[in-house]
Amino acid sequence: MSQPAVTAATQYVVRVGYADTDQGGVVHHAVYLRWLEQGRVEYLRERGVDFRALEQEQHLTLVVVDARLRYHRAARFDDVLTVHTHCKDGGVASVVFAYDVRRGDETLMTAEVKLACVELPAGRARRFPAELSAALGRK
Amino acid sequence: MSQPAVTAATQYVVRVGYADTDQGGVVHHAVYLRWLEQGRVEYLRERGVDFRALEQEQHLTLVVVDARLRYHRAARFDDVLTVHTHCKDGGVASVVFAYDVRRGDETLMTAEVKLACVELPAGRARRFPAELSAALGRK
Amino acid sequence: MSQPAVTAATQYVVRVGYADTDQGGVVHHAVYLRWLEQGRVEYLRERGVDFRALEQEQHLTLVVVDARLRYHRAARFDDVLTVHTHCKDGGVASVVFAYDVRRGDETLMTAEVKLACVELPAGRARRFPAELSAALGRK
Amino acid sequence: MSQPAVTAATQYVVRVGYADTDQGGVVHHAVYLRWLEQGRVEYLRERGVDFRALEQEQHLTLVVVDARLRYHRAARFDDVLTVHTHCKDGGVASVVFAYDVRRGDETLMTAEVKLACVELPAGRARRFPAELSAALGRK
Repeated sequence: MSQPAVTAATQYVVRVGYADTDQGGVVHHAVYLRWLEQGRVEYLRERGVDFRALEQEQHLTLVVVDARLRYHRAARFDDVLTVHTHCKDGGVASVVFAYDVRRGDETLMTAEVKLACVELPAGRARRFPAELSAALGRK
Repeated sequence: MSQPAVTAATQYVVRVGYADTDQGGVVHHAVYLRWLEQGRVEYLRERGVDFRALEQEQHLTLVVVDARLRYHRAARFDDVLTVHTHCKDGGVASVVFAYDVRRGDETLMTAEVKLACVELPAGRARRFPAELSAALGRK
Repeated sequence: MSQPAVTAATQYVVRVGYADTDQGGVVHHAVYLRWLEQGRVEYLRERGVDFRALEQEQHLTLVVVDARLRYHRAARFDDVLTVHTHCKDGGVASVVFAYDVRRGDETLMTAEVKLACVELPAGRARRFPAELSAALGRK
Repeated sequence: MSQPAVTAATQYVVRVGYADTDQGGVVHHAVYLRWLEQGRVEYLRERGVDFRALEQEQHLTLVVVDARLRYHRAARFDDVLTVHTHCKDGGVASVVFAYDVRRGDETLMTAEVKLACVELPAGRARRFPAELSAALGRK
């Protein structure tokens, strides 16, 4: 039930803004988490899950419980980056998204982010509903 | 009823973080809005209004409807700044906070921010409740 | 020399991310400044000015000196917004960009942001170089 | 040379701002990275290293190369948190900071962040200078 196939990657394109940089002249390391998050939203949208509706209509959300981030090369202002998102692993109530953030052929950053399905507003753990489970590649 | 005295200022101290800077080597101009907001929270706390309780118990919040921001000098990483917040003007359902952000004797930035009182979650305009009205210097 | 025509608007499309929201359930008011900034970058790019090259090769940048922000309606998570940017006014060393941020036909926010041309890293005021002046609609 | 003792923790206190929350009603997971970063700055300051001077006078900085973040419980608006920072491990040119972020006795989040010492602006790896090495607990 909970053995997902590794899914195909969704590609989300983002251009680095001025506000994304810091005085070191490169993108601040916290900014990537915002892009990974948007990568997840686009991944789900491609597979028919509207994250806004999930929250508003089903009162469920995904919360980050663990993140592993590896920074290989710096991104810079005005770079065009592609966030490759796929779904790697997980169970009936949590999932691991894997990412790589690329500038052309260079991988700038890779990450794995584990999310749990919880009820809103209480925050109790919940099993994935069926269409989310399907979007995440569960058989 | 709605003619406030100009109130005394609340001083909120903040140290500039690395993430607050951009590649120009100074604090990004959007960051100040976060500090002004915290200045308002501290202003209200000093006058007995807990903003968290206002939202959770009274289901009211303040939303920014207008902001005028003037940037005089740049703040830099690790600077210690003081946000001076006072309440300048307003009516029965809106208020103008005035700010100056200082580094020692230098004024780096001044601002006026108008906020309206609205219901949560619907967003309808509401009159200030009594204790908020008092905190804002209304007679 | 310094009397600009009002220029045509550049349209920059952005989708609201989850991190752009606050616990009021809407986009935090500071986030718009990031979008306005990107609107300027795209406005200049459409007119042949590469902002990254301006900084790196000419050692010039634009700094915000004054901003007037009017919030009419709230933007929400996953909304697709269009930032309309045009150049309204200015002199030989400063310029006012005017914005409206729309969701379909609704105007959510309007703004005017004055920027000054300064040297990097010293921050001294400078006249616009010729190609920037042209991009800003100066005759 | 490169076997550090585990150092005593620096405590950095931060109050959660409204802008730190998202529409889930809790602190957005990316915000913690900003607090961890400030924890490092304060850790170094307590041990006599001024991070601003390190960059400006020695043209060295620390860049994040790896981060492992574990989110246990949500922080909320207006919470007062303590970021406990210590230095766990490392070599002659990189170091691992370990953190826990607490609200009173509860641990909300733990993290390990590996940083490398690099030259500015080129980004080449460098050995820690002596006083930084000492601050990081190297014998």
